[in-house]
Amino acid sequence: MTLTLLLLQLTVILIVARACGLLLRAFGQPMVVGEMAAGILLGPIVFGALFPQWHAALFPPASLQGLSSLASLGIVLFMFVVGAELRAPSGVAAQVKAAGWVGVSSMALPMVLGLAIAPVLHPTLAPAGLPFWPFALFLGVALSITAFPVLARILKDRGMTRTPVGQLALGAAGVVDSLAWVLLALVVAFASAGNGFAGFVRITLGLAALVALVFLVVRPALAWLLRVHAPDGVPSPMVLAGLMIGLFACAMVTEWLHLHAVFGAFLFGVSLPRDDRLLKHLMERLEPLSIVVLMPIFFALAGLGTTSGAFADAGLGAMGLILGVAMFGKIAGAAAGARVCGYDWRDSLATGALMNSRGLMELIVIKVGLDAGLIGAELFTMLLVMALVTTAATGPLLTLVARQRSQDVRGAPNH
Amino acid sequence: MTLTLLLLQLTVILIVARACGLLLRAFGQPMVVGEMAAGILLGPIVFGALFPQWHAALFPPASLQGLSSLASLGIVLFMFVVGAELRAPSGVAAQVKAAGWVGVSSMALPMVLGLAIAPVLHPTLAPAGLPFWPFALFLGVALSITAFPVLARILKDRGMTRTPVGQLALGAAGVVDSLAWVLLALVVAFASAGNGFAGFVRITLGLAALVALVFLVVRPALAWLLRVHAPDGVPSPMVLAGLMIGLFACAMVTEWLHLHAVFGAFLFGVSLPRDDRLLKHLMERLEPLSIVVLMPIFFALAGLGTTSGAFADAGLGAMGLILGVAMFGKIAGAAAGARVCGYDWRDSLATGALMNSRGLMELIVIKVGLDAGLIGAELFTMLLVMALVTTAATGPLLTLVARQRSQDVRGAPNH
Repeated sequence: MTLTLLLLQLTVILIVARACGLLLRAFGQPMVVGEMAAGILLGPIVFGALFPQWHAALFPPASLQGLSSLASLGIVLFMFVVGAELRAPSGVAAQVKAAGWVGVSSMALPMVLGLAIAPVLHPTLAPAGLPFWPFALFLGVALSITAFPVLARILKDRGMTRTPVGQLALGAAGVVDSLAWVLLALVVAFASAGNGFAGFVRITLGLAALVALVFLVVRPALAWLLRVHAPDGVPSPMVLAGLMIGLFACAMVTEWLHLHAVFGAFLFGVSLPRDDRLLKHLMERLEPLSIVVLMPIFFALAGLGTTSGAFADAGLGAMGLILGVAMFGKIAGAAAGARVCGYDWRDSLATGALMNSRGLMELIVIKVGLDAGLIGAELFTMLLVMALVTTAATGPLLTLVARQRSQDVRGAPNH
Repeated sequence: MTLTLLLLQLTVILIVARACGLLLRAFGQPMVVGEMAAGILLGPIVFGALFPQWHAALFPPASLQGLSSLASLGIVLFMFVVGAELRAPSGVAAQVKAAGWVGVSSMALPMVLGLAIAPVLHPTLAPAGLPFWPFALFLGVALSITAFPVLARILKDRGMTRTPVGQLALGAAGVVDSLAWVLLALVVAFASAGNGFAGFVRITLGLAALVALVFLVVRPALAWLLRVHAPDGVPSPMVLAGLMIGLFACAMVTEWLHLHAVFGAFLFGVSLPRDDRLLKHLMERLEPLSIVVLMPIFFALAGLGTTSGAFADAGLGAMGLILGVAMFGKIAGAAAGARVCGYDWRDSLATGALMNSRGLMELIVIKVGLDAGLIGAELFTMLLVMALVTTAATGPLLTLVARQRSQDVRGAPNH
């Protein structure tokens, strides 16, 4: 019976994810937006509200451990690839500097705004007994995320990867990625340290020891392993197994430190040699199954964690506030950074629109927060909706900025 | 804690599997032999006996659902590829006929011998209350398996794929594969039909309906889908998702019919168009993760199902009997079939040695039997050891036959 149910769950999850993806792709959205929406559809807000008995039969609580291990494997593999894809911003010094500015300012403004609205949200939306600061800091980080993978996909779909705006946004998203995971790790360590400052020190020391181990021992060892056993960048099954062992071990250590497995997975990915052929072969081997089968399971489990309480009257106000702050903070922060570095207003706004896409990264961040007890089901739902809306808005906002530009160009007398 | 434990389990399983694989590869064994041995090592017979507390801490029963869903995904993907790889024996009519003869005779002899020893084993080794015939028929099928994938790997390692013996063994193994799964399905249907003949009819009718649906509707639909959306044999993520949905749905139906998910997965694989480019791309996308990460989990779970009771005094006798019957029946049956078709004795014996390799297929078959209650932990252990020994014996037996030949050649006066 258990295996029948698991296979039924997989079938339904994949069908709904692909159907939503196809439907929203018809409106120019990337696949991931449909998959995120599919997760919400399968949760208690839509499917559970419309067909409560079928919902209870398809997703009984006792069955979720099986789905959960598949989703965890997917997310660990995904974060490994994200880490392996991370590149220092490239180009001439001015471009690197611009990417740094845009990255930092696009994080700083939403983070400050998040801290500013935290006093409003804490009384009603924080889990019972959670002090103010862990809640506020987590909210700040959660609002400041940018989804590198979705951004890269949108740029590719629009043929913008090699444009100045595309390069700037990619570089800045890389900066945000590294900063955000470090900040999130610190926030979780701060919050998980139940026994005060000593606990925080223990967790950060553990993390520092792991980082030192990974960069001083694992990284050279990996570089040697790959130079000797995969000189052409093609990992043999044995090399792939070695990478998976290191990946699972790293993820396990961070999870055991009361951080989250995603940090170790990301860290291990970062420790790989920056070799584009290797990355290509790894993605060919790991992504089809994890993107097509495992990630939709993660989205579905995220959807199961939502609650319709977020759509009650008081909730709608909070959701609007979060959404407004997230979008304004990110777009204005990124655009201001780009403007300071000499980009014109339209390119700056386009950069802001791109950086505003939060996608799957946001889901991982809020899942970490939910697992660590930093947010409850209602705020989780609101942030999930925010992630969906900001990601879905990226394409239309870009189109809007581009149309604005082409009208200007048409109207320009000397052109 | 749960995720920490899952990641720890994955790390340990992969390390032990690869270490055993490397060790046994040094003795000329294919990787899968080491992985099977690793499963037994991690079970109660070795690890559990040496370090009972660590074993209990690493594999608490409540944690196994997570591992089990990963192993199930692995086995479903694996059986899908086995089905997709199935080819009718090719070549001139004489070769096809020979493959048919060898396939049938290499199954018939061990099956008859299995039925012959069943009365000896039934009183002590059958699960309580299981009638004689389901037990005996299952034993017969379990002894008559040949592992197509291991066989193909061994032939490739030895550069024998294009030799007459290699072609004969591959063709015959394909015949065994198809026959064995049909027979096993009938045996499980017969045994699972708790309410007698009506139940058997219900299960076989359900299976017949599924087969008809798959071949009359799904197969043409798949052919169309792949012709239109993957004309070059490269499945897009959308096509891959479609295939996975069909795969999980098919596996679910057979599992729900009280057969086993593996039958549906195999059936769906068989229904794919016979297109070598498509197969190559599918394997590139599905195999790295499932072979490197998921299958070792399946082996570890199989090892957790073993019991040291199989090595008690009475057990050793039964194990010896099973091993002797399995090896003699398979080698003699296959060799006799080849001899009848005009191959010389050495080629016939080499074919017998190849067909005797049971590998992973045997593990899947006995897992099906264990899940269906047709065998208990002791017989499961004995058959697992038999699978390991017959697979490990394939290489040495082949070498022995080949050395015999080269001595003959050296000794032959006219050469």
